[in-house]
Amino acid sequence: MKEETKKQLDYMLKTLEKAGVYDHAGHIVQFDMETACPRDAMEEQADLVAYLNNQVFKLTHTKAFIAAVDHLHAHEEELSVHEKAMVDSFYRMFRRTRDIPASVDHKINKVFNKAYVDWIKAKEAADYSLFEPSLKAVREAELKKMEYIHDRKERPYDELLDLFEPGMTQEVLDDCFAACTERLLPLLAKIRKSPKKIRTDFLYREVPDTAQAEMSRYLMDLLGYDFNRGMFTTTEHPFTDSLGRKDTRITTHYDPHHFISSMYSIIHETGHALFDMFSPDAEWDYHYHEEKSMGQHESVSRFYENIVGRSRAFTDLIYDKTCEIFPTAMKGVSPDEFYEGINMVEPSLVRTEADEFTYVFHIIIRYEMEKLIVNEKADIRKLPLLWKEKYEHYLGVTPGNDAEGILQDVHWTSGFGYFPTYALGNFYNAMYYNRMKKELDVPGLIAKGQIPVINHWMEENVWKNAARLDADPWIREITGRSLDPTDFLDYLENKYGQIYGL
Amino acid sequence: MKEETKKQLDYMLKTLEKAGVYDHAGHIVQFDMETACPRDAMEEQADLVAYLNNQVFKLTHTKAFIAAVDHLHAHEEELSVHEKAMVDSFYRMFRRTRDIPASVDHKINKVFNKAYVDWIKAKEAADYSLFEPSLKAVREAELKKMEYIHDRKERPYDELLDLFEPGMTQEVLDDCFAACTERLLPLLAKIRKSPKKIRTDFLYREVPDTAQAEMSRYLMDLLGYDFNRGMFTTTEHPFTDSLGRKDTRITTHYDPHHFISSMYSIIHETGHALFDMFSPDAEWDYHYHEEKSMGQHESVSRFYENIVGRSRAFTDLIYDKTCEIFPTAMKGVSPDEFYEGINMVEPSLVRTEADEFTYVFHIIIRYEMEKLIVNEKADIRKLPLLWKEKYEHYLGVTPGNDAEGILQDVHWTSGFGYFPTYALGNFYNAMYYNRMKKELDVPGLIAKGQIPVINHWMEENVWKNAARLDADPWIREITGRSLDPTDFLDYLENKYGQIYGL
Repeated sequence: MKEETKKQLDYMLKTLEKAGVYDHAGHIVQFDMETACPRDAMEEQADLVAYLNNQVFKLTHTKAFIAAVDHLHAHEEELSVHEKAMVDSFYRMFRRTRDIPASVDHKINKVFNKAYVDWIKAKEAADYSLFEPSLKAVREAELKKMEYIHDRKERPYDELLDLFEPGMTQEVLDDCFAACTERLLPLLAKIRKSPKKIRTDFLYREVPDTAQAEMSRYLMDLLGYDFNRGMFTTTEHPFTDSLGRKDTRITTHYDPHHFISSMYSIIHETGHALFDMFSPDAEWDYHYHEEKSMGQHESVSRFYENIVGRSRAFTDLIYDKTCEIFPTAMKGVSPDEFYEGINMVEPSLVRTEADEFTYVFHIIIRYEMEKLIVNEKADIRKLPLLWKEKYEHYLGVTPGNDAEGILQDVHWTSGFGYFPTYALGNFYNAMYYNRMKKELDVPGLIAKGQIPVINHWMEENVWKNAARLDADPWIREITGRSLDPTDFLDYLENKYGQIYGL
Repeated sequence: MKEETKKQLDYMLKTLEKAGVYDHAGHIVQFDMETACPRDAMEEQADLVAYLNNQVFKLTHTKAFIAAVDHLHAHEEELSVHEKAMVDSFYRMFRRTRDIPASVDHKINKVFNKAYVDWIKAKEAADYSLFEPSLKAVREAELKKMEYIHDRKERPYDELLDLFEPGMTQEVLDDCFAACTERLLPLLAKIRKSPKKIRTDFLYREVPDTAQAEMSRYLMDLLGYDFNRGMFTTTEHPFTDSLGRKDTRITTHYDPHHFISSMYSIIHETGHALFDMFSPDAEWDYHYHEEKSMGQHESVSRFYENIVGRSRAFTDLIYDKTCEIFPTAMKGVSPDEFYEGINMVEPSLVRTEADEFTYVFHIIIRYEMEKLIVNEKADIRKLPLLWKEKYEHYLGVTPGNDAEGILQDVHWTSGFGYFPTYALGNFYNAMYYNRMKKELDVPGLIAKGQIPVINHWMEENVWKNAARLDADPWIREITGRSLDPTDFLDYLENKYGQIYGL
């Protein structure tokens, strides 16, 4: 490595170490805000998060830092693979951020944080009007940020997609979702007309929070979560966050009258957590751990939630323990009924409660709305009506209020473009599951509780290079093919064809 | 106000606003570390707390800031009462800190934070040797800090006392504690020989955490705690912390076989919280809210815990609800038995579990040990033996292991000199209770659940000027007298004389 490159690299690493302190504090304060902070203190704490994030922004947007990244990017042949990954992640980010003044960034973060606080209140009151001004401000903030982007993409929504899934475009997604609609809507109609009776009464029996917490701990442990490096607690909207290298936390939400809701939320979030816990240390040492494709991340969480968690082998594996922890709810429920109940297809209003089959329609609805909001500047006041129309069109259900309608998700408090990554996650994991099945006896391993063997395969094939690679080269490395929803649609057709005898 | 004074005042306020951001973040990160952080992440998080505190230290120890305080202190006649309180608090702090290099302060904070982490591990393992090196480092850090003090007091322990209770000295405390020993030891002997039988079996009946949490919430609510401005959770060692102006949090600890332990811990911490919640906003606006006398603070927590909480009127008030929340434990327990069980005198090993009567001996023991540790440089290795001897001397009990012996308290992870403030709290509150009784029908108000009337008296008389005044002028303003343990000793003699029929 040449002298100047070494100097710039040292400078970059030293600056990132300093920024890392604020980033760490910001994550902790935000986690506290979302899990522990009392209501009247939330706004002040949101400002604190914005301040800390702004310190990170400032430290990584000085002229000297940008110049260091530019220099290193121009001399990448001198860098190691991890140094290169680090430089690339910042170089790419700078396309969006290098011209944003720190004061504008700070202002925008405050908009997002206020939106979060307003959303909490609006959702509690089931009153969209309390969130409407903030949602409008969020859109303005998103568009404001775009003004500073170099070589901006033609459609603003493509910019947002690219942020969570580098390289992803509306064009690709339109095709994927058209394939989903084309194959799944007719199948859904068949399922709904099927004479198959699935027992669901037991799923709504009351289960106390303490038992649900015990179940959470059991599932996390079963899946290989390391409690010395994490914890779980409750929030309105479940999430996973790695606050530090040895600190990957999960949140969940207990519905006393729907115990599988938190069970599958926990499995989903544990998937995210395993991804982070098993990711290479170098991603942290070289500060590119947060630059992952979210489609990769959701592929993992939804792999554990659905392909593992909703499989017959898994529901059999946890059957006895479930009967033990939820004795009243599970009374008189057979293993068959347990499996089928968990997999019952039933169009519903709330995305996070949706079954595996209809889930993708919840994403398609949000995707279409986001395109309208961002590209077409749709009237923010009319969104609840649009929402209602789309739910009626795709799923034949109508929200009774805003809390189970347009206010159900936290995502729009911090911008647009995330939702499609959930569907991408399904497409990717069905693709790599088709390879995994050839190399491992997956149902057999699950039946024996040997999830760590599956985790090891995931580590070697899915996690190891995820942060270094964009989704396309990553999925091609694993499967030899580019994104294709066919595997996912085949998987659904096969699984639900069997359950419903089609 | 003159031009220069205004300029310096503006500079001071602006700097403190900036430091306040780091202070706020530091409190949140520390709270998280103590309540949520997973084990493997604790050390990194402790370093983060030290870093954030050091930012506060740096901002308030620049030449310009110290000069501003010096200037304002020399021109106090131009300041408002709150400006003066702010300047005074910093001027006084600077006697200790103005010459400490920021790097030394940072190093010392890291010692304390590491000590906390080691203490957790040592206590869990009931193994003092795991804490011993850190305890030694804490003493060294305390002595190191003293090297930088201007006009240092003759005895190092007086410096530490002064930190938590400005103006307090060993001389005064020696007298107070001698009076306690002289009057209470003979009385304790009489109590122990009394034929009075107090029923205690029910106190050790199993009560699940969920019921104890429900009881915590009930008691906090009853006492006037505002849940919009606070929350409670569990920790090994209960505490109260005001993370922000509208964010006063409480922690507690549930012992499944000793339900009154968390009940009275909650009442104690709620006392601290009420003090903070009802303190004037100006204390925050002018950044002197953390400069309170800890004796004042403990007087309030112990007022609610003992004088209110362990009174007959209070145990009668909560009797029905206690039977409802703890139906199994309270089965067949009469209101008399409930009151007497809560007030049974029984020498024991653990300070936080001690009855109201023997509590002060736990403080005397720690006070004597701290004098030896700090003034006499006692051999750190021999402390467990010393501890054992003192417990045998004063209370006739012997710890079975270090966890219930020398490792029981968190305090020595951050230095020495705090413990006496608990006893001072008892002395002060007995003094102001004697005035309150003349102005309010305290038992009558408690019986009717009208605690807010008592809170209002406390706000007007005890809290309003607490932060602005040192303990001596403060207690003289309330009672017309200086510190005197007699009221406390009379109170104990009277209450326990009645219970034990002496």
